[in-house]
Amino acid sequence: MKSFSDRLIGVLKEKGSPAVVGLDPQLDLLPPEIKRKNFKRYGRNFRGAGRAVLEFNHRLLNIISPHIGVVKLQVAFYEALGPHGIEAYQKTVNLARKKGLLVIGDVKRGDVGHTAETYARAHLGEVDIDGTPVSGYGVDAVTLNPYLGGDSIMPFVKTAKAYGRGLFVVVKSTNPSSRDFQNKRCGTEMLCETVARKVDKWGSGVIGESGYSAVGAVVAAGSPALGRRLRRLMPRAFFLVPGYGAQGAKLEDMRLYFNDDGRGAIISASRSIIFAYESPAWKKKYGMRDWERAVEDAVLSMRRNIARMLGNGR
Amino acid sequence: MKSFSDRLIGVLKEKGSPAVVGLDPQLDLLPPEIKRKNFKRYGRNFRGAGRAVLEFNHRLLNIISPHIGVVKLQVAFYEALGPHGIEAYQKTVNLARKKGLLVIGDVKRGDVGHTAETYARAHLGEVDIDGTPVSGYGVDAVTLNPYLGGDSIMPFVKTAKAYGRGLFVVVKSTNPSSRDFQNKRCGTEMLCETVARKVDKWGSGVIGESGYSAVGAVVAAGSPALGRRLRRLMPRAFFLVPGYGAQGAKLEDMRLYFNDDGRGAIISASRSIIFAYESPAWKKKYGMRDWERAVEDAVLSMRRNIARMLGNGR
Repeated sequence: MKSFSDRLIGVLKEKGSPAVVGLDPQLDLLPPEIKRKNFKRYGRNFRGAGRAVLEFNHRLLNIISPHIGVVKLQVAFYEALGPHGIEAYQKTVNLARKKGLLVIGDVKRGDVGHTAETYARAHLGEVDIDGTPVSGYGVDAVTLNPYLGGDSIMPFVKTAKAYGRGLFVVVKSTNPSSRDFQNKRCGTEMLCETVARKVDKWGSGVIGESGYSAVGAVVAAGSPALGRRLRRLMPRAFFLVPGYGAQGAKLEDMRLYFNDDGRGAIISASRSIIFAYESPAWKKKYGMRDWERAVEDAVLSMRRNIARMLGNGR
Repeated sequence: MKSFSDRLIGVLKEKGSPAVVGLDPQLDLLPPEIKRKNFKRYGRNFRGAGRAVLEFNHRLLNIISPHIGVVKLQVAFYEALGPHGIEAYQKTVNLARKKGLLVIGDVKRGDVGHTAETYARAHLGEVDIDGTPVSGYGVDAVTLNPYLGGDSIMPFVKTAKAYGRGLFVVVKSTNPSSRDFQNKRCGTEMLCETVARKVDKWGSGVIGESGYSAVGAVVAAGSPALGRRLRRLMPRAFFLVPGYGAQGAKLEDMRLYFNDDGRGAIISASRSIIFAYESPAWKKKYGMRDWERAVEDAVLSMRRNIARMLGNGR
């Protein structure tokens, strides 16, 4: 069984970029033509909304899959649509994996004991239906919340190891109130640094041939100094870095999340890519009708910007 | 709009007990007769499993609803079954509410910005389908994870206020590794105490006529001293206390979670009630065939034990 980190590095090499696109289909921003068609066919309800989301994702995947190797699905936008939304989530995962993409389920789950095992098997492994193992959501990795401690993470590590999957623990998030607890000084360091130490430990049994672990971290440090400290505390972790294209995030600051080998981080953008047609730059050029060309331009621009930042000119 | 805390107190008064039953339908423990029937009718797959779960819950609700006022659904056991599981979750929520029970969705979500708003509307409020508001999961309250700070909680508080719903923030969990972070000393107190202060603050704008807030806390302190400190830090919060009937949990230690008015806490049991027929005591008396009588005996025994502990003899 090839480890998650080796699979991830393989797909990043193949595509030549650490860019990740977030498929976060916020219903009110979906192209009107897609909503109109699906509401007409399936009803202006959860069913129609689920089908609209699936068509949007399908067309997005056709555009972006030649250019990027990893997609991230924020499950909230699917969960909000009930069973029809979860069906769209499953089908999107399958479509993306058929195109050779790695899929991260941005679920941020965190629970303990048998509940954690149930989540782990459902998202990364197989569910036992009365003795018959049935594939669950089948994503390549999930994001997790660390507040409940090691008991809430280790069932995922165990399942990740068995199925060649991975996980990213939220260490430091982008939002202003991440300071409420993550930046609290606990002894000689911030809480997020204490979490980072644990992430390194939790991942120590699932190191791939590349030297990287199947246990990664969600990191948006906010300051270069903290970013460097987190990188040092988790040398073997892949960082999932959100916030590309979001207000206030500086791409240059993301350089320090990469190790000297140019690996160790993936950079994620959601809204600025999939809803590129609503940004002033692309809106003027393409308008809403040509939303697919705006998406392609945005993803190519993201690739170029990241390559320039990394200094490899690709 | 009646506030969540007043609605909660109303139903606790009506039923005369702060007992909560957790509907956590672990598939391998479901009564064989229910599985057999539903697998035969719908297939030994997610569909059959979802229908088996729904029938089990329906029959559980018929037994327990005369005796208790609140049920808690651990969503992991539904989410694990895909769209069919989520459908069973929705239908169980509806059945329970029709019987006049309050329903807590034990989802432990935690995310920020628009994602948090999407989760909040889906679980506690209404989802906007192209201009039409459609009821979401419709639970009365959810559990939340605080690691991402106020940004991840306030969208729920806002939705809770608008719809008369509530939330319970995980402050201190039961599992051994809750010590990893929750017990970390940050300055003069433990992290969970810092979280407790925030819970009190987040709930300050949603106080009901009873004096209790719509923002509660999940608390399993582990030590009476910490339990008392948490009670003092969150005087207006309802505590959702897990662990009744679980190994090691002492009912007597739960007395201190209640305020002097005998209110302020609800005590939850899952496996020891719904799978009572697998415990030695009830197994011998009833066996698997009479699982419904074992459930009723277990829930009545829980009520009695809690009443004795509270010293009101009810």
